[in-house]
Amino acid sequence: MMISSIFFIFFLILSSSYAAVQDFCVADYTAPPSPAGYSCKNPSDVKVDDFVYSGLGVPGNNLKLNKVRLQAAFVAQFPGLNGLGISLARADMEVGGVVPMHTHRGASEVILVAEGKVIAGFITSDNKAYVKNLKKGDIMVLPRGLLHFQVNAGDTRALVFASFSSDDPGVQNLETALFQNDLRTELIAQTTLLDSAEIKKLKGLLGGTN
Amino acid sequence: MMISSIFFIFFLILSSSYAAVQDFCVADYTAPPSPAGYSCKNPSDVKVDDFVYSGLGVPGNNLKLNKVRLQAAFVAQFPGLNGLGISLARADMEVGGVVPMHTHRGASEVILVAEGKVIAGFITSDNKAYVKNLKKGDIMVLPRGLLHFQVNAGDTRALVFASFSSDDPGVQNLETALFQNDLRTELIAQTTLLDSAEIKKLKGLLGGTN
Amino acid sequence: MMISSIFFIFFLILSSSYAAVQDFCVADYTAPPSPAGYSCKNPSDVKVDDFVYSGLGVPGNNLKLNKVRLQAAFVAQFPGLNGLGISLARADMEVGGVVPMHTHRGASEVILVAEGKVIAGFITSDNKAYVKNLKKGDIMVLPRGLLHFQVNAGDTRALVFASFSSDDPGVQNLETALFQNDLRTELIAQTTLLDSAEIKKLKGLLGGTN
Amino acid sequence: MMISSIFFIFFLILSSSYAAVQDFCVADYTAPPSPAGYSCKNPSDVKVDDFVYSGLGVPGNNLKLNKVRLQAAFVAQFPGLNGLGISLARADMEVGGVVPMHTHRGASEVILVAEGKVIAGFITSDNKAYVKNLKKGDIMVLPRGLLHFQVNAGDTRALVFASFSSDDPGVQNLETALFQNDLRTELIAQTTLLDSAEIKKLKGLLGGTN
Amino acid sequence: MMISSIFFIFFLILSSSYAAVQDFCVADYTAPPSPAGYSCKNPSDVKVDDFVYSGLGVPGNNLKLNKVRLQAAFVAQFPGLNGLGISLARADMEVGGVVPMHTHRGASEVILVAEGKVIAGFITSDNKAYVKNLKKGDIMVLPRGLLHFQVNAGDTRALVFASFSSDDPGVQNLETALFQNDLRTELIAQTTLLDSAEIKKLKGLLGGTN
Amino acid sequence: MMISSIFFIFFLILSSSYAAVQDFCVADYTAPPSPAGYSCKNPSDVKVDDFVYSGLGVPGNNLKLNKVRLQAAFVAQFPGLNGLGISLARADMEVGGVVPMHTHRGASEVILVAEGKVIAGFITSDNKAYVKNLKKGDIMVLPRGLLHFQVNAGDTRALVFASFSSDDPGVQNLETALFQNDLRTELIAQTTLLDSAEIKKLKGLLGGTN
Repeated sequence: MMISSIFFIFFLILSSSYAAVQDFCVADYTAPPSPAGYSCKNPSDVKVDDFVYSGLGVPGNNLKLNKVRLQAAFVAQFPGLNGLGISLARADMEVGGVVPMHTHRGASEVILVAEGKVIAGFITSDNKAYVKNLKKGDIMVLPRGLLHFQVNAGDTRALVFASFSSDDPGVQNLETALFQNDLRTELIAQTTLLDSAEIKKLKGLLGGTN
Repeated sequence: MMISSIFFIFFLILSSSYAAVQDFCVADYTAPPSPAGYSCKNPSDVKVDDFVYSGLGVPGNNLKLNKVRLQAAFVAQFPGLNGLGISLARADMEVGGVVPMHTHRGASEVILVAEGKVIAGFITSDNKAYVKNLKKGDIMVLPRGLLHFQVNAGDTRALVFASFSSDDPGVQNLETALFQNDLRTELIAQTTLLDSAEIKKLKGLLGGTN
Repeated sequence: MMISSIFFIFFLILSSSYAAVQDFCVADYTAPPSPAGYSCKNPSDVKVDDFVYSGLGVPGNNLKLNKVRLQAAFVAQFPGLNGLGISLARADMEVGGVVPMHTHRGASEVILVAEGKVIAGFITSDNKAYVKNLKKGDIMVLPRGLLHFQVNAGDTRALVFASFSSDDPGVQNLETALFQNDLRTELIAQTTLLDSAEIKKLKGLLGGTN
Repeated sequence: MMISSIFFIFFLILSSSYAAVQDFCVADYTAPPSPAGYSCKNPSDVKVDDFVYSGLGVPGNNLKLNKVRLQAAFVAQFPGLNGLGISLARADMEVGGVVPMHTHRGASEVILVAEGKVIAGFITSDNKAYVKNLKKGDIMVLPRGLLHFQVNAGDTRALVFASFSSDDPGVQNLETALFQNDLRTELIAQTTLLDSAEIKKLKGLLGGTN
Repeated sequence: MMISSIFFIFFLILSSSYAAVQDFCVADYTAPPSPAGYSCKNPSDVKVDDFVYSGLGVPGNNLKLNKVRLQAAFVAQFPGLNGLGISLARADMEVGGVVPMHTHRGASEVILVAEGKVIAGFITSDNKAYVKNLKKGDIMVLPRGLLHFQVNAGDTRALVFASFSSDDPGVQNLETALFQNDLRTELIAQTTLLDSAEIKKLKGLLGGTN
Repeated sequence: MMISSIFFIFFLILSSSYAAVQDFCVADYTAPPSPAGYSCKNPSDVKVDDFVYSGLGVPGNNLKLNKVRLQAAFVAQFPGLNGLGISLARADMEVGGVVPMHTHRGASEVILVAEGKVIAGFITSDNKAYVKNLKKGDIMVLPRGLLHFQVNAGDTRALVFASFSSDDPGVQNLETALFQNDLRTELIAQTTLLDSAEIKKLKGLLGGTN
């Protein structure tokens, strides 16, 4: 019986055909991905719910140090986005909260201020800072791959929705990239000019070692 | 003096150099575009306001027949998006209002229900309809190039923000594409199977001729 | 013996290597596709016949309502096209026949009139119709993602070959997209302004429900 | 008056706006191109004839040495193709005629045998030749960037239509690339292993020097 | 005469045609670029020297704080690269020298150690550091958009050549992006968790204000 | 026990999840590739050594006929490059040695002369040869898909490093493409204008048949 069930699984693998319409490619997280994204679920297994995601309806994970709650709707959370070149996220900033300085390796971003007041900015390759005070309803574009940030500039909670030109934009937060791993303090100091004491202090705060 | 001013303009044209950092390419609407988008403004003329757009803060143009107000923040409205592969739009649906059946020639879309209740759907190449009732905070992805629509499903105004995987997604509304131009009724009838009387009625309603 | 054959299959799976020249990627319809297309057959299994297709030598499937026979040579029919960004199709229009109003989600098209006379046209995002009478030998380009159609304009059969800028262009026929599924008549009426009676009539003709 | 007409031209240049729908980008051959293709004609100057080309209706330029007539419908001949990623060509091979060994720098090709019998083939990076006898109606794909050729295999004229996955595929014919320029015989001999006498003979035939 | 020379210039502008072979697109830095790169020089003005660059033959600009000399051969320095998706650079690290922590907005990089010993590393989106001691002849790939660095790990000069998957990779150095502009100390402190005193010290060192 | 180990393997296959950060996609040569490249190794199996390659530290395979040693660091040799759009290679030319005339199907190349003197050149679609004498430290770009070559122009060994705008550039050497397979002499003669005796001589030298 065990063996026959193995054969049954083999049979399934061998008989399934994907020679169908490919209007979309809903992510199958259990098969190996390619440089173009996740493998596609068999179209016959796709349901309308693969194209809908409710996780942006509420605030996300709490980053206490930054007084911000973040929730991504990237392809890793929302399988229907796979290969479609778009994704969203949500940031709920408390008073004094920030979305810390970060980059997305392969995506431009547009932020929309849904509630509150926000200072947003990005820094270019020639070290110029473009910074703007945004009010409710304003949108701002943050060109791909550049350092950028947002700060709650008001005395109420601020809510921002972000859209990305990739279904897998990646997020590299400066503070955790530098201070939440085992990269040696000496190497960080040499390559950033930051003071070793400062580095060790932040490693302590963020959980880094070495 | 006129001639010298002409020379001054020539001088400006000939001496200006664009050999700079190209983190972005803010649209210059007065120079010829290329298949990749608009020409870039000279970086020295770029201001932070080129990256900010306030037009999504309020409802847009009124499509009375559909009881909807639409406002795009595509590259034609928002020059900072040029070449960055992303854009946004806003739809305010009255009670009974709809975003009519349409396609975007080269973009996937994610809609976010900001207020109210919405029925959204898309139709695939093999004629299957994926339709879903969405509540506030839900997002839904509409894969690139397929017919899709939204309907206010509640008894209050509905507000939807849409994000696109292109800075120039284009919008082809079915009703205006078919009935708001001079395409001959006979050709429409032959190629859609619609009744000629129906076509003429809708041409009358939407301003089409022939 | 069963077990050893299982092991043999495992052995095959584990020992096969794809670390070879990748000039092409002939589609393997049995493995999961990715957003970039189908998986590649093992190069050692590729034959010259994977690159040749004879199905365009004769008229294809009959769409009686449109008096047209259509045959695609897309990647789903012709595995050698996989990943190569090109495909073909053939339309044989009887007298009075048409290629009905449709879009391709992600491809531009060039049609070549091989026999007969054809009226071809496309409609832009700003609702302008570009329509032209074509004679034998003429070609016309139909820009990506826009509604377009062809009509036999002569009193003999017309034969058209179409080329596409994608190996998987998709076809969304307006009449079947709207009227050959279970999308509710009310939703169609609201989002197209078409009359409910007209919708029900065409659903009847084309096999739609609801 | 001259000056005012100059100003008029300036006025035209400065006042013209391209902030319009960009469903297509018809080539303007007088403005500088970009890596993405030619600049776009002002949309208000676009006519339906920009999307139609009749040059493929008749045989093209005669390459007497190869007994073939070739006619391209690339973007340089057909402005409507600009940026759309597709083009066509036509080859009329006399009895004994050939489309000589060549590559396209950036395009895959599909050939369609419209009349006669053809031997077509391509060679891979690992030096394997895929060769096939094609009959009327057959299509064959020639993967991007590889050496390929066609030979009239029958005793009547053969007509082939070719489609390309680029609007600017380029053609590099081996015989003219090697023997129709001033590249020194010695360099050719060293880098191809061909005999110098053979090189000089073919330079003589094809118009090369040095 | 002035007027006639103006007309002569106009004539040149109006009569020049770019309807030629586009195997390459040598950058014209005086015309407006597009999102795809610089405009192309008229092919008739292209010389072989447009495809050759000698600036990588010697060490480049001295970054004294980092004990490194850097020389880029990006499209802004080397016009022949325009649109070709590749560029190079050279780093000469003194003993104790480093290529400081930085990102490239849109390019992957491969470094080749030509002389000396180098520690190179990159940090991923989930804050993991991949660090390796490299010897002469080793190459290492630094995936696109991620923070990375190099350190001279020997007691002699180290020479590294870097290749990029873009002709315009951009460089965002962390230390100058944060500390060599007018971004307010308070905003930096809030969005990086760095101490204000540390920020002010580094602004002083690098020339930043506010 | 055998069966349980099968189940263990199944368990591994079924339980592994790839829903992780995709900053890179290290090639798994045992799974089927897609048009976008090889499948990705499970991120938990990735080591820093996947991003490092030492094979370019020494001369590569000896092509005796060309007096050159070649070593590629393409994705087939260096798994960390997969999907990143870049690769390298090394050529060691003896006195009198050459890198023979060849094309890369989908990549531009930049060569860097590390030692010695080199003549390098490429040929365009309109048969123009761009040839240049390069000295140590010079770089030259060879636009994608065009025939090109290098010749040792000095009286010492020459060392060249090449970078490519693809992780899988492919190499089609003219001499082996034409003369190292079973393509019939007659077909080669017809499609290249080369003399049959010359073809047979080179087939003999390079191992071709027919």
